[in-house]
Amino acid sequence: MELLPGAPRAPHNLMATAPATPIQVGIVGGTGYTGVELLRLLAQHPSVQLRAITSRKEDGMPVAEMYPSLRGRVDLAFSHPDNASLADCDVVFFATPHGVAMAQAESLLAAGVKIIDLAADFRLQDLASFEQWYKMPHACPQILREAVYGLPELHREAIAKARVVGNPGCYPTTVALGLAPLLENGGRLIDTQTLIADCKSGVTGAGRKAEVGMLYSEVSDSFKAYGVAGHRHHPEIVEQLQALRGGPVGLTFVPHLTPMVRGMHSTLYARLTPEGRDTDFQALFEQRYANDAFVDVMPAGSTPETRSVRASNMIRIAVHRPNNGDQLVVLVIQDNLVKGASGQAVQNMNIMFGLPETTGLQHIAVLP
Amino acid sequence: MELLPGAPRAPHNLMATAPATPIQVGIVGGTGYTGVELLRLLAQHPSVQLRAITSRKEDGMPVAEMYPSLRGRVDLAFSHPDNASLADCDVVFFATPHGVAMAQAESLLAAGVKIIDLAADFRLQDLASFEQWYKMPHACPQILREAVYGLPELHREAIAKARVVGNPGCYPTTVALGLAPLLENGGRLIDTQTLIADCKSGVTGAGRKAEVGMLYSEVSDSFKAYGVAGHRHHPEIVEQLQALRGGPVGLTFVPHLTPMVRGMHSTLYARLTPEGRDTDFQALFEQRYANDAFVDVMPAGSTPETRSVRASNMIRIAVHRPNNGDQLVVLVIQDNLVKGASGQAVQNMNIMFGLPETTGLQHIAVLP
Amino acid sequence: MELLPGAPRAPHNLMATAPATPIQVGIVGGTGYTGVELLRLLAQHPSVQLRAITSRKEDGMPVAEMYPSLRGRVDLAFSHPDNASLADCDVVFFATPHGVAMAQAESLLAAGVKIIDLAADFRLQDLASFEQWYKMPHACPQILREAVYGLPELHREAIAKARVVGNPGCYPTTVALGLAPLLENGGRLIDTQTLIADCKSGVTGAGRKAEVGMLYSEVSDSFKAYGVAGHRHHPEIVEQLQALRGGPVGLTFVPHLTPMVRGMHSTLYARLTPEGRDTDFQALFEQRYANDAFVDVMPAGSTPETRSVRASNMIRIAVHRPNNGDQLVVLVIQDNLVKGASGQAVQNMNIMFGLPETTGLQHIAVLP
Amino acid sequence: MELLPGAPRAPHNLMATAPATPIQVGIVGGTGYTGVELLRLLAQHPSVQLRAITSRKEDGMPVAEMYPSLRGRVDLAFSHPDNASLADCDVVFFATPHGVAMAQAESLLAAGVKIIDLAADFRLQDLASFEQWYKMPHACPQILREAVYGLPELHREAIAKARVVGNPGCYPTTVALGLAPLLENGGRLIDTQTLIADCKSGVTGAGRKAEVGMLYSEVSDSFKAYGVAGHRHHPEIVEQLQALRGGPVGLTFVPHLTPMVRGMHSTLYARLTPEGRDTDFQALFEQRYANDAFVDVMPAGSTPETRSVRASNMIRIAVHRPNNGDQLVVLVIQDNLVKGASGQAVQNMNIMFGLPETTGLQHIAVLP
Repeated sequence: MELLPGAPRAPHNLMATAPATPIQVGIVGGTGYTGVELLRLLAQHPSVQLRAITSRKEDGMPVAEMYPSLRGRVDLAFSHPDNASLADCDVVFFATPHGVAMAQAESLLAAGVKIIDLAADFRLQDLASFEQWYKMPHACPQILREAVYGLPELHREAIAKARVVGNPGCYPTTVALGLAPLLENGGRLIDTQTLIADCKSGVTGAGRKAEVGMLYSEVSDSFKAYGVAGHRHHPEIVEQLQALRGGPVGLTFVPHLTPMVRGMHSTLYARLTPEGRDTDFQALFEQRYANDAFVDVMPAGSTPETRSVRASNMIRIAVHRPNNGDQLVVLVIQDNLVKGASGQAVQNMNIMFGLPETTGLQHIAVLP
Repeated sequence: MELLPGAPRAPHNLMATAPATPIQVGIVGGTGYTGVELLRLLAQHPSVQLRAITSRKEDGMPVAEMYPSLRGRVDLAFSHPDNASLADCDVVFFATPHGVAMAQAESLLAAGVKIIDLAADFRLQDLASFEQWYKMPHACPQILREAVYGLPELHREAIAKARVVGNPGCYPTTVALGLAPLLENGGRLIDTQTLIADCKSGVTGAGRKAEVGMLYSEVSDSFKAYGVAGHRHHPEIVEQLQALRGGPVGLTFVPHLTPMVRGMHSTLYARLTPEGRDTDFQALFEQRYANDAFVDVMPAGSTPETRSVRASNMIRIAVHRPNNGDQLVVLVIQDNLVKGASGQAVQNMNIMFGLPETTGLQHIAVLP
Repeated sequence: MELLPGAPRAPHNLMATAPATPIQVGIVGGTGYTGVELLRLLAQHPSVQLRAITSRKEDGMPVAEMYPSLRGRVDLAFSHPDNASLADCDVVFFATPHGVAMAQAESLLAAGVKIIDLAADFRLQDLASFEQWYKMPHACPQILREAVYGLPELHREAIAKARVVGNPGCYPTTVALGLAPLLENGGRLIDTQTLIADCKSGVTGAGRKAEVGMLYSEVSDSFKAYGVAGHRHHPEIVEQLQALRGGPVGLTFVPHLTPMVRGMHSTLYARLTPEGRDTDFQALFEQRYANDAFVDVMPAGSTPETRSVRASNMIRIAVHRPNNGDQLVVLVIQDNLVKGASGQAVQNMNIMFGLPETTGLQHIAVLP
Repeated sequence: MELLPGAPRAPHNLMATAPATPIQVGIVGGTGYTGVELLRLLAQHPSVQLRAITSRKEDGMPVAEMYPSLRGRVDLAFSHPDNASLADCDVVFFATPHGVAMAQAESLLAAGVKIIDLAADFRLQDLASFEQWYKMPHACPQILREAVYGLPELHREAIAKARVVGNPGCYPTTVALGLAPLLENGGRLIDTQTLIADCKSGVTGAGRKAEVGMLYSEVSDSFKAYGVAGHRHHPEIVEQLQALRGGPVGLTFVPHLTPMVRGMHSTLYARLTPEGRDTDFQALFEQRYANDAFVDVMPAGSTPETRSVRASNMIRIAVHRPNNGDQLVVLVIQDNLVKGASGQAVQNMNIMFGLPETTGLQHIAVLP
């Protein structure tokens, strides 16, 4: 079977060729869910050599002992950050708590190593907002300034040239891609001040921390909203939406915790302007993403289910206008650990190293 | 322990007294989830005598054979509708597909039997809307006209006098109660034309039908919207909201299927009018439901989880106004099988027969 | 509806009468799952006055704030153990880690307070075994000697007279009741040296501790054995089985973790002796439990599902002899938090205080 | 990363080379779970050309419309069996109900097409047993006689030469591989007459049929045994075990339904003979499977969890001898849809066509 999901959809991918020698990759802090997902993807990536993975706490433990799914596939052991030869890598992924990447960025860059941070250190350009939400001063504002927000469908060219990429949050990926076609060109089609994002996330979004609130017996067979009064992803989303529109944007964002392991479903609401009423939104979305291999605009009337992207890097979007009224409803789904985190990070790596964007990311979703 | 959840909250309940002889109860079509839930509640109700339960298909099968949870507690067998002495009952619950209750209503009423229909036959006063959504002509429009919409918190007095009650749909219960305080008195506090109800339901909401789409392996670990283009509960909700406001209301309603057995979470969005900006919504909601034993307005800032009402008749509401802005967010949870169906039906029965409203409905939620 | 599940099944219950004044109850350590389940049951118990609930960590927090399911039903706040007037109670339940009850037993008994310990302090009569498995010396061996193992179906008379009851572990309850009819009278029907208990537990069995291994994202959609090399419940089970047989017993016990909140399913294997081959095991089991209100021997050929006892105090047993061969298979189900913990504790309290055994424990299982 | 999971483990795989032209593959009946799983695997297989997929009922529907996970990856539509050019294929997979493959086998073989049947038509050599359990006469006993049981770890050489392969049932795969090292060489190490297989399956094992018993709301948060009196896989397992031993074998087999989508966990019990007591079972198992790429014998003391093989073709085995006693406990896990069905079918295809056995089956398990 042909493995590319459709050449016409991603012509820019086909010009690149794989490097003669594999990319040397390091991972800092690979014990969490984005870490093991990075390992799953990179261990199957045809152009990658996994060099080092660090964990202060698990120093010496074989990775496959913590994650038996990797037995026979990943031979590395966790090494102490002090001993890991990260400076010999071509790229280092940070799958760490917020604040770790920015502490090491300067020395790695000096050694010629590229950085992809899966935490928030290089996502927000607004320093005050970063400090308000992450409760720490930014360690290297000048590096932040050159960092690129790693959402390839919005910033592909900049990512290709970046030394530092801030990999987007899971919620922001869905909201930004679900609203981008409506906001580009000035956002004249919708009321940009009354946007609503009602988002539902699987539990892996909360990470692999020992917290009572994320126990099976707490989360199972239940559903709730959280962070209604404020959530770290809100300023990140707004910053991207404002850049898309080229002006201020008003957004109400309500995240919800859903009893499932992986998966994210964002239901986005936008009110049409009089100008918007005459728009063919199905065509608008299809054209916008015609060249993006990982964005699948579904046929009109679709209601995508999250399992249709489980363990894959795809994002699926369906656009609805109920009763042909003034309220647009955009449904966006992704696997929060893949396109919402580690898959997107690998996609960024591919772009940064001139590989076809889909390299090593062609896994078909696991359904059922 | 005192079993009433707080006398001051429901003074009207305390004046009634239990009837000397138990209410004679019949159930038509008790093989589905609302049926077995009715059985669970009625078998533990102190003032009820279960007389007959019918099922054309399961004629002769002991109820406890289909539902082993009822072994030793319900001795009845299903009987054929033709042989069931429903006319000897005081009240008959219809836990049937749409269309069954209206076919039998006239003869039962003639025999002096009250009717509580858990299907849609007596919910919608708008005949055209009924026929459009349920694809059948209404069999008894004159009975429909006298029927009362069985939402006690809105129509308690009318229910007390009713011969026929149309028990509300699960979604409408949450949306109507979540928006009622905002719509009463003319709805001057919010923009009544741009309401949004983003609702999430557990899978029992789809009933106990053999359908591929509701198989464990289809629904588990996944999330999706459905019925975006139109859903039967939409006209039912709108009819109630318009009655509350006393005028037209615009509503976008998007239901979602959530991988949990029981539970419903409605996230409601309303934009404030300038007049609304000065309102203390926490106080407004608390006062509105001060006398309703089954509506619990949570403290400001709460995010209720559906399991906190699992298997109980409670509904919990939390009101949010993020960043003190113009967007009000109301969170409403219930157990879709209890307050969203069978519990509310028993609550209606209590009112119709002069019992304290909470009789037999005091079960504390099962958590975890 | 009549609330007793069948008078003929439990004649001994009917002779007792409720005390004129409610039992004064204290709970030590009520923040875990057995604690909140005790609260659910006791708050609905007609003869109980909840006096105090202690938690060192949550001192001052209203119970209903931690468990919103109890809002409006339990007004108590957690109090510091030092300030709780436990000595004024009639009975104190310990829903604590192992070792807490034995430290307080002496002073409570001196004050005339009865004790029901849901941890392991008073389960094992073999001190060496206790110390080996719980890694602590026993604080009061003389009290342990008078303590009664709180499995009413085996030790009802002793419980009625006990000052201290060691409430059984969840696994032991199912294994002891599933094998008791085979072991009593010397165990001549089966090979008592090659018993196997293959047990499956819901996740609440692991308690409400912040542990990575019990996170939703770790446990969901997966299944595994654990403790194959040894489990604390093994000596407890064996002690009971040996008492039943009146001699040594050999048991292989393999517990498994199942992705469900509540529920336990034990599949028990026993090889028949030549004498056993002529036994009518269905009749044996039915007769053995004819007077036990909470043990339901299912009809021959049944395969009970755990949800049929969810949130109820019932235990269901089915006996199989595949192909009429020499291998007996006994299936036992319970809700691990009710009959496997808090429900059984309340059942013990009822017996200790002369109440009908089923008082406050009549809840019908929540299905679905 | 190197994609082979360890050359030393599967030396025989490395001698084969991929065919110059892709294998032409047909699938009969691809609408069920084994069908979509075959599609997932074959669409990513480097040496396969998917030619036709048939469904009487879904004739004309694009496969990706039924399974959106395949959008952009599988362009085929279902075709009517009468129109599908199966005779042009090199191999046809039957992912159909029992009885379909045997009706078409003769004509396909005549056309030179190889057959891999995922149903039971070619599993049991005992015709009487087949007819007893599947309630139909066998249509082609002579073809059955030449058919090979497709468990590569037991019958690799025969599979390589086979025209017809009966792909094993999911339970039999785990039980046969878990007991093979104990039964080969005459089974002198264990009592071969008292074997027990206590097996737990995810819900996809029941297929994608519209049945009330497999609804989410029936299966979720519950656990039960089924088929205790008899199960179709029992004679299939016994036939394999007897072939391994070279003599009669006694087995008690109890399957259980577990609330998870994919995954199977078999807990196997065997009593040691005096000769067995001196055996190093860890070494025995490791040596037995040293050359099998898809069988992972875990380190001593392990308790594998099913998610560690989710969506992968691995099977993991752990051998326990609690307290160094006479009872051996073998834990076996697999993904019932991969190694237990479609993955094993592809593994068989690889062998039949001289490909390295692991071709297209290297997917790392999806965890979490």
